[in-house]
Amino acid sequence: MTGDKPKARLPRGFLDRSETEIVAQHRMLETIKQAFELYGFEGLETPFVEYTEALGKFLPDLDRPNEGVFSFQDDDEQWLSLRYDLTAPLARHVAEHFDAIPKPYRSYRAGYVFRNEKPGPGRFRQFMQFDADIVGAASVAADAEVCMLMADTLDRLGLAGQYVVKVNNRKVLDGVMEACGLAGADKAGQRLTVLRAIDKLDRLGADGVRLLLGSGRKDESGDFTKGAGLGADAIERILAYVSFEAAPHEGGDRMTFWEKLFGTWQDVVGDSETGREGIAELHTIMRLCTAAGYGQDRVRADPSVVRGLEYYTGPVYEAELTFPVQNEDGQTVRFGSVAGGGRYDGLVGRFRSEPVPATGFSIGVSRLFSALQLVKSPLLEGTAKPGPVVVLVLDRENIAEYQAHVAALRNAGIRAELYLGASGMKAQMKYADRRRSPIALIQGSNEREAGEIQIKDLIAGAKAAESIASNAEWKAARPAQVSVPVAEMVERVREILASHFG
Amino acid sequence: MTGDKPKARLPRGFLDRSETEIVAQHRMLETIKQAFELYGFEGLETPFVEYTEALGKFLPDLDRPNEGVFSFQDDDEQWLSLRYDLTAPLARHVAEHFDAIPKPYRSYRAGYVFRNEKPGPGRFRQFMQFDADIVGAASVAADAEVCMLMADTLDRLGLAGQYVVKVNNRKVLDGVMEACGLAGADKAGQRLTVLRAIDKLDRLGADGVRLLLGSGRKDESGDFTKGAGLGADAIERILAYVSFEAAPHEGGDRMTFWEKLFGTWQDVVGDSETGREGIAELHTIMRLCTAAGYGQDRVRADPSVVRGLEYYTGPVYEAELTFPVQNEDGQTVRFGSVAGGGRYDGLVGRFRSEPVPATGFSIGVSRLFSALQLVKSPLLEGTAKPGPVVVLVLDRENIAEYQAHVAALRNAGIRAELYLGASGMKAQMKYADRRRSPIALIQGSNEREAGEIQIKDLIAGAKAAESIASNAEWKAARPAQVSVPVAEMVERVREILASHFG
Repeated sequence: MTGDKPKARLPRGFLDRSETEIVAQHRMLETIKQAFELYGFEGLETPFVEYTEALGKFLPDLDRPNEGVFSFQDDDEQWLSLRYDLTAPLARHVAEHFDAIPKPYRSYRAGYVFRNEKPGPGRFRQFMQFDADIVGAASVAADAEVCMLMADTLDRLGLAGQYVVKVNNRKVLDGVMEACGLAGADKAGQRLTVLRAIDKLDRLGADGVRLLLGSGRKDESGDFTKGAGLGADAIERILAYVSFEAAPHEGGDRMTFWEKLFGTWQDVVGDSETGREGIAELHTIMRLCTAAGYGQDRVRADPSVVRGLEYYTGPVYEAELTFPVQNEDGQTVRFGSVAGGGRYDGLVGRFRSEPVPATGFSIGVSRLFSALQLVKSPLLEGTAKPGPVVVLVLDRENIAEYQAHVAALRNAGIRAELYLGASGMKAQMKYADRRRSPIALIQGSNEREAGEIQIKDLIAGAKAAESIASNAEWKAARPAQVSVPVAEMVERVREILASHFG
Repeated sequence: MTGDKPKARLPRGFLDRSETEIVAQHRMLETIKQAFELYGFEGLETPFVEYTEALGKFLPDLDRPNEGVFSFQDDDEQWLSLRYDLTAPLARHVAEHFDAIPKPYRSYRAGYVFRNEKPGPGRFRQFMQFDADIVGAASVAADAEVCMLMADTLDRLGLAGQYVVKVNNRKVLDGVMEACGLAGADKAGQRLTVLRAIDKLDRLGADGVRLLLGSGRKDESGDFTKGAGLGADAIERILAYVSFEAAPHEGGDRMTFWEKLFGTWQDVVGDSETGREGIAELHTIMRLCTAAGYGQDRVRADPSVVRGLEYYTGPVYEAELTFPVQNEDGQTVRFGSVAGGGRYDGLVGRFRSEPVPATGFSIGVSRLFSALQLVKSPLLEGTAKPGPVVVLVLDRENIAEYQAHVAALRNAGIRAELYLGASGMKAQMKYADRRRSPIALIQGSNEREAGEIQIKDLIAGAKAAESIASNAEWKAARPAQVSVPVAEMVERVREILASHFG
C-alpha cells in the first residue's frame, strides 16, 4: 500500500516560501514599486503563458537558443511557453495594443519567470524579476532616466554608497571592433573571443587580456586558451579602451572627467561612424545624470559592461553592488550585478512594419533580496510577525464558550485562534510557543466557576524563565500570569500586547 | 517581410491586466489577507510547477479526470504540471515537511492556477484563487472556524447583509442515500442522478425534482430526462430533506431553529450511522457559530450544498452572494457562489501511511472582484491613481535643465517625469491628458530668460474649460496657469497637488 503512494516532493529548481520570507520580499517589492511610480511608471501584468512564437528566442545563452524554455502544445497544436522574462511579453503587449497606449509608455512589471535549465546553487527554474521599461522614446534621455531610476531604487532599499550603475554602449563596442578590422558577419567568432577576453580584465589584468587578444594564454594549470589572433595595434587599441580607470572622484567639474574619458575612446574608435555615435550618446547620458545631481559614484560610463543578450542595440547598463563577499573559492570579491538592461529598438518591431524604440532594465529579485539580507538592510527589520493569541481548550464540552472568547478578541481586532487539535495542556502550550504566540488564554473549571480566565504573557514569561533557577521557584512565583474576570479579558490582552509591540 | 512577422496576441483564456485593475484587486487581496491573519492563519507560497503525480487528479469534472491540466515532461522524462488549484500543492507541502510544521496548521495562499480547458465568457485558463486551510484538526470546530472566517471576510469586503455561508455535510448526503437503499459501489450512477436532481431544486421546484427522482421528466421543449427510478418512499424522504425552508429569522432562541431542522433530517436518514454522525457534526458547527455571535443570516445549514469535488469527506460549505443580477437569458437570479470548500481528510494522507484531517476553502478571486464592482463596494473607491507631473520639452538643447526640474520634483517625493518623445507641444499636452497628469510644467525661452517656469493645473483647467465658451475668451483668461520663479516650482506644485488630493 505505502509503496503505491506518490512521494511528496518538488521538482528540482522550485521552492516553497514561508511567511517570513514572503513578508520581507513583499516589503522589498513595495519599495521598488514606489521608486518606479515616482518616475511616472505604471503597473502592467501579463499572463504566465504566451505563444512560443510571440516570445521569440532571446535567452542569454546564445549557444542553445532553442532550449531553456518550458513549452507545451495547445489543443490546436500551437506551441505555448511559460514566459522566460518580462521583456518579451511587454513587447507583445505593446504591439498588440499599440494605438491605445500613450507613448512614450513607461511600464513596470514584477513576477515569476521560468527557465528550463539545470538548477544549481542560487540558480532556480522559477524566479522573480522586476522590470521597468520605456517604449516609444528614441532619445537617450530615456536611457539616462532608467540609469537614475536604478540608482534611486537602490538608495531606497538602503544600499546608498554600496552600488554603482555602470553604463556602456553596444555602438561603442561595435566601433572598437570596426576600428580593429573586426566588422562584418564573417568575423562574428573573432568578435566573441574579443568580448570574452574583455570580460576577463578584472580577473587576469591587462597582461592576461593582451595574451587572449593575441596568440593565446596558458594558465597556471597549463591549459592553453586560444587567442583572438589580433595584431599589436588592434590589441593596444582595445586595451586603451578597456583599461581606463573610472575611479570615483569628488568635487571639481564632473563633466571634465567624462570629456577626458570620451576623448580617449574617440581615438580608439577612430573613423567608425557607429563608434562616434555611441560615444556621443554616452556623453549625453552622463551630461543628463550629472545635471540631475547623480555623481559618477552613482552612475558612470564603464567599458567593461557587455551584457549577453543579442537584442540590445545601444546603451547597456548594469547595477553592481560594490561591497565585498566571499566567493565559493573563499576569495573576497564584489557582490556584483543585481540588475541590468539596455536599449532594444528591435523587439517590439518584430511584430510591426516599423521599428519601435525601447529601453529598460530588469532586477533579479532573489539576488537583490540576498544582498539586503547580507548587509542587514533596515528595510527587512521587523518582518517576522508575532503569532496569534491562542485560546486553549481544557474541556471539550465547553468549546462553544472558548470559541466565544476567540470571537470577542477578533471583534476587537486582536489576532486570535482557538486551539483546534486533540492534545493536552502541555502540547497546547508547546504549540503556542512554536507559533510565536504572545499570549495564551486558559480557562479551567475553577476559572469558569469564578467567571474568570487566566492570561499567560508568553513573552514576559520567557524573559522571567531566564532568570528563575528552579522549577519549584517558578511554580511559586507564577510570573507573567494573571487571572481576570472574563469581561475584562479583551482589555487586559490589549494592554499586554501594547506593552510588547507598542 | 511583414508576412514573416509573428502575430502579437495572447492564447485564448489568458489576459493582460492594467494598473487600475491591479491596484483594485491588490486592495481586495490585502483585505482578505487581513481577515485570514486575524484568525491566526499564516502565509505560504508554493511554486507554479509540481510533479503531476504529486498533484493527483482532483479536478471537479469527474467525467474526464485526466484532462484540464497543463503538463510537460522534464529532462528526465518525469511529468510536470502547472498547478490547477492551491489545495493539492498544500497537501504536498504538508506531507513533505510534516514534522517541522506546528499542527493544527493554519495556512493561507493566494495565487494563479491554470486549467487547460475550453475558455468562455468569464472562464479563463489562468485565474486567481485565495485559500485558507486548517490541517491536522479532526474536530468540526475547525470547520466552524472556516465558516465564520468566510463570513467575516465578506463583511470586511463591504458585503455585509448580502451573503450567506451555507453548510452541509457529505455524511448526511451519504446517510440519505443509504436510507433510500442507494448505498454501495454498484449504485454510484444512481446516486449521481439523485445529486443532479437535488441540484435542480431551485430551478424546477419540488414537483420537477420529484419527477427526476422517479420515472423522469419532460421539459417545455419536449426533451425527456431519464429519472433515478426511485420508489415513492425514497422520493418523499429526499424531498423532506431538501425542501426544508431555512429562512432567516431574527430574535428568539436561534438553536431551537436548528434543532427542529436536524430533527427532520434525523427522520430522513433513519438508522444510517454515517447520516447521524453527519447531522451531529452540523449541529456542533451551528452551535459554535451561534455561540460566537453568527446568526443564521450569516452561516446556516442548507441541504442544497453538494460541491462537485470527489475528495470531500465531511462538512462542505459555500459562500453565496444573495443580491440579484440578470443572467445571460435576462432572468433575475442571485449572484451565487464566490467561495467554497469542505473537509478533505484523505488528501495529505495520499502521501503518508496515516490519514491527516484537513478542512478549508477557496475564494474565486475574479468572480468575487466582479461582485465588488457590481455592488460598487467602497473598498474599490479611489483605486485610479493620478498620473505623474509631466515636464514638457520645448527645446531639446536644454534637456539637461528639464531633467534637473524633474529630479527636483522627485527629490521632494512628487511623482514626475520628463516627456521623452519627439513630438511638439500639442502632442505633449495630449500625452499629459492621456496619462491623467494633474500638472504640466512648461519652460520656453521667455520663461528661461526670466528664470521662471509655467505651471499648468490640468485638473482646474479641465473644470474651467467646461464653463468658458470661446477659444478667444479662453486665451484671454488663461485659467489655471501661472508662471513662477524656478526656485518656487516645487512648493507651488505641492500646493496645487494638495488642493486636489488633500
